[in-house]
Amino acid sequence: MDAAQEAQKREAFRQAVVNTLERRLFYIPSFKIYRGVAGLYDYGPPGCAVKANVLAFWRQHFVREESMLEIDCPCVTPEIVLKASGHVEKFTDLMVKDEKTGTCYRADHLLKDYCKDKLEKDPNLSAEKAAELKHVLAMLDDFSPEELGAKIKGYGITAPDTKNTLSDPYPFNLMFQTSIGPSGLSSGYMRPETAQGIFVNFKDLYYLMATSFLLQLHRLAKLSGMSINRKLGNVKYSSKGVKMISPRQGLLRVREFTLAEIEHFLDPEDKSHPKFSEILNLEVFMFPRKDQVSGLSARIITIGKAVSQGIVKNESLGYFIGRVYLFLTRLGIDKDRLRFRQHLANEMAHYAADCWDAEIECSYGWIECVGIADRSAYDLRAHADKSGVPLVAYEKYPEPRDVEKLVIVPSKKQLGLAFKGNQKIVAEALEAMGEKEAMELKATLEAEGEAKFRICTLDKEVIIKKDMLSISKEKKKEHQRLFTPSVIEPSFGIGRIIYCLYEHLFYTRASKDGDEQLNVFRFPPLVAPIKCAVFPLVQNQQYEEVAKRIAKSLTTVGISHKIDITGTSIGKRYARTDELGVPFAITVDSAPSVTLRERDSKQQIRVNVDEVASVVKELTDGVSKWPDILLRYPTHSSRPAVTGV
Amino acid sequence: MDAAQEAQKREAFRQAVVNTLERRLFYIPSFKIYRGVAGLYDYGPPGCAVKANVLAFWRQHFVREESMLEIDCPCVTPEIVLKASGHVEKFTDLMVKDEKTGTCYRADHLLKDYCKDKLEKDPNLSAEKAAELKHVLAMLDDFSPEELGAKIKGYGITAPDTKNTLSDPYPFNLMFQTSIGPSGLSSGYMRPETAQGIFVNFKDLYYLMATSFLLQLHRLAKLSGMSINRKLGNVKYSSKGVKMISPRQGLLRVREFTLAEIEHFLDPEDKSHPKFSEILNLEVFMFPRKDQVSGLSARIITIGKAVSQGIVKNESLGYFIGRVYLFLTRLGIDKDRLRFRQHLANEMAHYAADCWDAEIECSYGWIECVGIADRSAYDLRAHADKSGVPLVAYEKYPEPRDVEKLVIVPSKKQLGLAFKGNQKIVAEALEAMGEKEAMELKATLEAEGEAKFRICTLDKEVIIKKDMLSISKEKKKEHQRLFTPSVIEPSFGIGRIIYCLYEHLFYTRASKDGDEQLNVFRFPPLVAPIKCAVFPLVQNQQYEEVAKRIAKSLTTVGISHKIDITGTSIGKRYARTDELGVPFAITVDSAPSVTLRERDSKQQIRVNVDEVASVVKELTDGVSKWPDILLRYPTHSSRPAVTGV
Repeated sequence: MDAAQEAQKREAFRQAVVNTLERRLFYIPSFKIYRGVAGLYDYGPPGCAVKANVLAFWRQHFVREESMLEIDCPCVTPEIVLKASGHVEKFTDLMVKDEKTGTCYRADHLLKDYCKDKLEKDPNLSAEKAAELKHVLAMLDDFSPEELGAKIKGYGITAPDTKNTLSDPYPFNLMFQTSIGPSGLSSGYMRPETAQGIFVNFKDLYYLMATSFLLQLHRLAKLSGMSINRKLGNVKYSSKGVKMISPRQGLLRVREFTLAEIEHFLDPEDKSHPKFSEILNLEVFMFPRKDQVSGLSARIITIGKAVSQGIVKNESLGYFIGRVYLFLTRLGIDKDRLRFRQHLANEMAHYAADCWDAEIECSYGWIECVGIADRSAYDLRAHADKSGVPLVAYEKYPEPRDVEKLVIVPSKKQLGLAFKGNQKIVAEALEAMGEKEAMELKATLEAEGEAKFRICTLDKEVIIKKDMLSISKEKKKEHQRLFTPSVIEPSFGIGRIIYCLYEHLFYTRASKDGDEQLNVFRFPPLVAPIKCAVFPLVQNQQYEEVAKRIAKSLTTVGISHKIDITGTSIGKRYARTDELGVPFAITVDSAPSVTLRERDSKQQIRVNVDEVASVVKELTDGVSKWPDILLRYPTHSSRPAVTGV
Repeated sequence: MDAAQEAQKREAFRQAVVNTLERRLFYIPSFKIYRGVAGLYDYGPPGCAVKANVLAFWRQHFVREESMLEIDCPCVTPEIVLKASGHVEKFTDLMVKDEKTGTCYRADHLLKDYCKDKLEKDPNLSAEKAAELKHVLAMLDDFSPEELGAKIKGYGITAPDTKNTLSDPYPFNLMFQTSIGPSGLSSGYMRPETAQGIFVNFKDLYYLMATSFLLQLHRLAKLSGMSINRKLGNVKYSSKGVKMISPRQGLLRVREFTLAEIEHFLDPEDKSHPKFSEILNLEVFMFPRKDQVSGLSARIITIGKAVSQGIVKNESLGYFIGRVYLFLTRLGIDKDRLRFRQHLANEMAHYAADCWDAEIECSYGWIECVGIADRSAYDLRAHADKSGVPLVAYEKYPEPRDVEKLVIVPSKKQLGLAFKGNQKIVAEALEAMGEKEAMELKATLEAEGEAKFRICTLDKEVIIKKDMLSISKEKKKEHQRLFTPSVIEPSFGIGRIIYCLYEHLFYTRASKDGDEQLNVFRFPPLVAPIKCAVFPLVQNQQYEEVAKRIAKSLTTVGISHKIDITGTSIGKRYARTDELGVPFAITVDSAPSVTLRERDSKQQIRVNVDEVASVVKELTDGVSKWPDILLRYPTHSSRPAVTGV
């Protein structure tokens, strides 16, 4: 099969998945009756259920098993917070505008598409030109706005939809801006990540909650970001609303998404992890930076080896790679289509010191679904600087140590006279000086009697006089060490994980008569939106009453289920629930026993009416597997009349 | 006790509650290190847990027990949707601005405060003046901007913080505005309610999911609204950040809140409810409109009587009042401080035909926490009009009926020639005409051969010629009735319910030595952020190991717990967990049994180590109550050394 055939096959597979997802209302294009808005999707009822199941498992797997603390912060964030974090300045994409219609495109995407297209489809491309285009692709993230603009002009790239000329690239901040309060005086943004809410709360949570230093926080939050495909061109309209035929990476590139973030704070001098041994021997596909640069492929390696060989820098980073691997594969992600790829230097976010992405292969290629970033102490330092509030942690020494220590003693009296109400703020800023800054200030004060001093929290410079403070170095016994913690941040794009799950768990099989291909989602019970279906075999009052009794007992044990009392053939009803990924179906035929069918094997057993709810509960809770249950009950093969699809 | 003393007592009680909530990080003022933003609070770890528990119970009580469908839509909403719903035009408050500082205030609030203050504190107020002020209070919601402005000027009301003069009242739209996409061409808002996402999806969900007509939808969503107190004046600052000493209704008036909404669609001609009998005999406090106007108080009445006497208009509205009552009281809301108050005519939102608020009494007075609105068919009609997509339901007749029916047959050929690609849209618009409009068009076409016709979906007028369609009335057998469903909408302010719960469940009691008043939250296990504490009596390796074993078995059965191995006295450790509302504590003293203590009674029993996790599970799942357990195990009174606080 050549590349074009393969691409066609991938496309056809995706169509089958997406059509099923839309027809069964896993997704609905948002505001569809108004023709939708590109990049906005609703989760319909089964989609909501899958999302709730994934989030519940995330909480179980990460939060409860690691005893993390959860906090929940607002979406609206004042500008000062995002200035400190660097998002106002750096969270931008370079955009170009269609000069006639005003439609915007990401400049790097257009250039990338152009190069790829040429390389794939131009048979007359010279070797020299091909090498040049490959070089452009490799350099894509390193171009300045001017370089990017020159390439676009040079290659004659135009707006994809209209062929109009394009503007020069300009930086566009990816956050949604808004103002807080009716005066319009206070500027803010919808948060572009949830992490900042944790960082700004570090002090309270550290002092008040942490009994030991290892402090883990996480948040789940509905997040409004814009790291998305903002084009409208790929969406096809009909009078019935948007038909999501194939917007480019439609369900992967959205304007709003649920991000689940963990901030794991740790001592920068000791990044070991107490539970590292638990994931030491996991074998995962890893794709380190140097292998990418050398043109190698991802390779299987144990996490233990990856850390001992220095491929992964420390145990804590390795631990989270292992936990993410377990999380994704338990949900149903195919382990052979999951790899951990290290970011290249030019890919990393402005705050990251190192980053590994969990990438999942789907019909769109390898998609980053989880980022595991070492943010070092970037954020806590930035917020401490900007707010003037120290965000630090302590380690108690087993024995006190002798150290030479900087001592800064502000004079309350003099500061009070000079700064009145701001006295305390000035004193705090002076006390917060580092050694170098303090010794320089001391030298200036001794030479000139006064010095300029910038107070971040007041956003102004003040004059400090010699009598306002004393700065000295003293020999002291130190009982503890003070440091700014480092942070490891596993950050989960829940929607992307869910979309990849759909692709990994979808298959088709022939109907019984061989006339049709039927769709099936092979959801594990953990993920399945509905765990069990209940069908009376034929429309009759006795069967319906038994079916309702079973439904009630399923409610009692907390199993989500669906009862279908329509007169549709049992085969069709099985096919309908297979397409929703319902793992088990109970068919009521002759009391006192009923038929229990498993979705993928289509095997059927006979179980007593009063027992069937607890059997389904065993299966969905994972206490028993289908093969175990199969041994315990008679199979249904003796009654071909009820055999399903 | 006079009014002033009572107010003081209420204030002191609130202080005690709020101080405890803040100290234990149930709430944290958002962005506190940057001095916070009024009206924004984070949920700290125990607050998150309480919220998660309340939402889980909400899902159980409403969604699962009623088999509702859940959908999840984006926060960002295009302008057209909110124009159709009326929010762009009508979702406004009248504001006045401090003419020097630019700070804004709600005009009606300032006027209300002035009147109340005068009435309460001015001893020289004449009877005539008092009557006037009372009249103003009663009329508050009916004043036009001009009237409000005149009153404010007339009474000489100034800005509360600065005493500066105030601007004239101006309407301020309460939604957060934003633009979608980098071109800035597409205007949108952060949604002011979650309901619109359901309405615009009605068609898909109705056709594809509903096996019977009764379609209920609900959504949970993080909502950005601004129905809040936007003043900064009540917040006291310190250099350490905001001290939330007492912003007016601080924890009740927030900029972002979680709203849980149910849209219960029903036949406008039959508003009965199949499960009405289940809540028929519930006795609740009701405060109908006419009793409010006549100066009466709320009174106890069964829901059955309220419906049969016409106080509540229909069974479905009554059913939801009953279900809301059960939901709130099961969470722990005091039934004697819960009432259902009908909106006065001037209070209702622009879409409401009737509305009952579940109001809970707390230190701020009676607070609306749940609104149960009859939105009639307002929204579906508005969206059908604006989008051109019919949003209707059908009722099948048992037997076909004879009717005279409007028949509109567009001519595909003629429309195709005239409108090309828009043919289908024009045809749909023609078919969607009502009887009156169609007959008028027919008359015009017959008289003049052509007519102007507006197509909403294209946002333009076209010329329709006589040969493009036929309009006639025919006698037909009708098999079904077509109608726009009505909607009953119970809408829950989750944050307000939680705050009221805190007040209703807080109490203090003397410490054992009588020296101190200790704080307790009497959370039912359903709500408690942590279900169980585990303490080794003294620091010793054996006890600690047993404690860890118990903790592990609690994890296995899914009970959230907290282990405290500090050397603090057992009494202090009990006090700490009482303040967090932890209902049960296990103290490890001498194996093989341990002490299990109940928070409110402080009773203690002896339970075997291997059994204790399952006993706690029984209690927290509600399978057994404490008095039952007390009968099954020996009490601990024999060992006074371990007795707690």
